[in-house]
Amino acid sequence: MDKLNLSKHISSQFNEEIEQVRNHVMAMGGLIERQLFDALAAIANSDSELAQQVIANDLKVNDWELQIDQECTRIIAKRQPAASDLRLIMAILKTIADLERIGDETRRIAKVALESFNSAQQDLLVNLDNLGRHVAQMLHDVLDAFARMDVEAALTVHKEDKKVDREYESITRQLMTYMIEDPRSIPKIMNVLWSARSLERIGDRCKNLSEYIIFFVKGKVVRHSSEETLEKEARS
Amino acid sequence: MDKLNLSKHISSQFNEEIEQVRNHVMAMGGLIERQLFDALAAIANSDSELAQQVIANDLKVNDWELQIDQECTRIIAKRQPAASDLRLIMAILKTIADLERIGDETRRIAKVALESFNSAQQDLLVNLDNLGRHVAQMLHDVLDAFARMDVEAALTVHKEDKKVDREYESITRQLMTYMIEDPRSIPKIMNVLWSARSLERIGDRCKNLSEYIIFFVKGKVVRHSSEETLEKEARS
Repeated sequence: MDKLNLSKHISSQFNEEIEQVRNHVMAMGGLIERQLFDALAAIANSDSELAQQVIANDLKVNDWELQIDQECTRIIAKRQPAASDLRLIMAILKTIADLERIGDETRRIAKVALESFNSAQQDLLVNLDNLGRHVAQMLHDVLDAFARMDVEAALTVHKEDKKVDREYESITRQLMTYMIEDPRSIPKIMNVLWSARSLERIGDRCKNLSEYIIFFVKGKVVRHSSEETLEKEARS
Repeated sequence: MDKLNLSKHISSQFNEEIEQVRNHVMAMGGLIERQLFDALAAIANSDSELAQQVIANDLKVNDWELQIDQECTRIIAKRQPAASDLRLIMAILKTIADLERIGDETRRIAKVALESFNSAQQDLLVNLDNLGRHVAQMLHDVLDAFARMDVEAALTVHKEDKKVDREYESITRQLMTYMIEDPRSIPKIMNVLWSARSLERIGDRCKNLSEYIIFFVKGKVVRHSSEETLEKEARS
């Protein structure tokens, strides 16, 4: 049924423009996925060159946001969309705002790769990498759900965020224990902590993205709802 | 000249609806200002009851965001605004998204008041309070700039963020030094650090809010611009 709604929409008057905007959102999402992948690889391999590249590429993410924002505003002014067409534009506007912030967090994560760590500290980075992969999978899945406007896939991502939160809390405890044992490492480990926090925030934003998909398909605002209400609304 | 634009706008057809939305944004902003003020007072006076109240009140902030978002969508669908009218709606949509996130950060700050601190740690909180007051002033000033759509006032807030960043960095260094000297305090001081980070992020968001004002009045997107370009565009 979700697919029917979508194809009905695609056949509407402003077909071409809206398809282009959707493609641009996917391109922006793809760029950010690669950025996150590269930031994690830069940390895992102590590759400061790759890290610098991630930091520089964030400008491209910003450019995408500005461009898509303008495309959406132009469509609203020119096409005066209503109902589900307008809902799609609103969902896209919110989506790119969150994607841009995911880009910001990714840039912050990449900065950790500019530090050098001893072997005991390298062990701590393994857990950061695991959290990173988990969050990268969430990002991949929610972009995939966006491409197909798939409510069930969006719901799965939404639920995943709780697991990410628990993983983040466990890493935080571990890093604090390490700092207590080796206080001289505090400034360095703090950077790892900020990265873990950034990853947790990316998880939150993937959750937001899944809510915009449900908002578009179901026409219901599910932000700030409990997990139960959200599931009920999404499946009604 | 900015005032002329605004009054021209106010006399346009959908006068009443847009005025109501603007009033709602001001009400939402006023609530968040009070929330931040209360969160800081709760920390300064170790008032856990007030902190709980701030945490509970964040639901009201969320409600405002949902309501104003719907009002804006309704205006777009019904009034099909163009040019500066549409720009105002877009600026408001971005404004309430940032205000809601400021509310989230404020809720996180309030949680620090639920901890108990010894007298040495209380001394560290004084600096957090100073940073808090600085950021609260920025929030007040940018809401004031929004009410009058005053570009010069928005520019002043925009520049203030650099000072907040420096103040935040100085607090971070101080807190890290304290943790190195007293490693057992790390978990507690980490919470103070998160709060300082939240305040710094509120500063960033006030900067965003000032950019939306410039966007509305000048019709120019100044996000992601350098300070010099921004100033030139805003004064052109």
